[in-house]
Amino acid sequence: MTEEENRAMIVNLEPDWEIIDNHHLQREWKFDNFKQALRFTNLAGEICEEQNHHADFELGWGRVKVKIFTHKIDGLVEADFILAAKFDCLD
Amino acid sequence: MTEEENRAMIVNLEPDWEIIDNHHLQREWKFDNFKQALRFTNLAGEICEEQNHHADFELGWGRVKVKIFTHKIDGLVEADFILAAKFDCLD
Repeated sequence: MTEEENRAMIVNLEPDWEIIDNHHLQREWKFDNFKQALRFTNLAGEICEEQNHHADFELGWGRVKVKIFTHKIDGLVEADFILAAKFDCLD
Repeated sequence: MTEEENRAMIVNLEPDWEIIDNHHLQREWKFDNFKQALRFTNLAGEICEEQNHHADFELGWGRVKVKIFTHKIDGLVEADFILAAKFDCLD
């Protein structure tokens, strides 16, 4: 997808998402403790398994940073935005 | 703890652990799929909750990278090495 196409797609997501390095979707969630952050990671991980498309997670006390991209092309395709939209439903 | 003390402590851990940036303990585990990596993260997360000492996790398809340090001092104390040793028991 072109940068223009990416910009057109990202407006469908929650505003916290950003495109970093031109080709990775990233969003951070904050939580009150570690347990809630781990719980979110599990719910998001289930979605990854269902979609057979896997995000990268940075999990720490009270926070989860998610990075989504298609490793094969080191870039973004429609499936990346769909995965991001499904994570948004977890809020 | 001094660098010398850190070096004396790390010999008690599995050899995959390294001290990065002089004051963070780091180890990466590899797995056959995402599910196993997520399972490991949950088991390690339980230990964090028990110890009330929380590591940082990078979770991706087939891999978990763990970083342990004491955020308050941005350095290492005995509790960090104990947490690392408990993670080693998960192998």
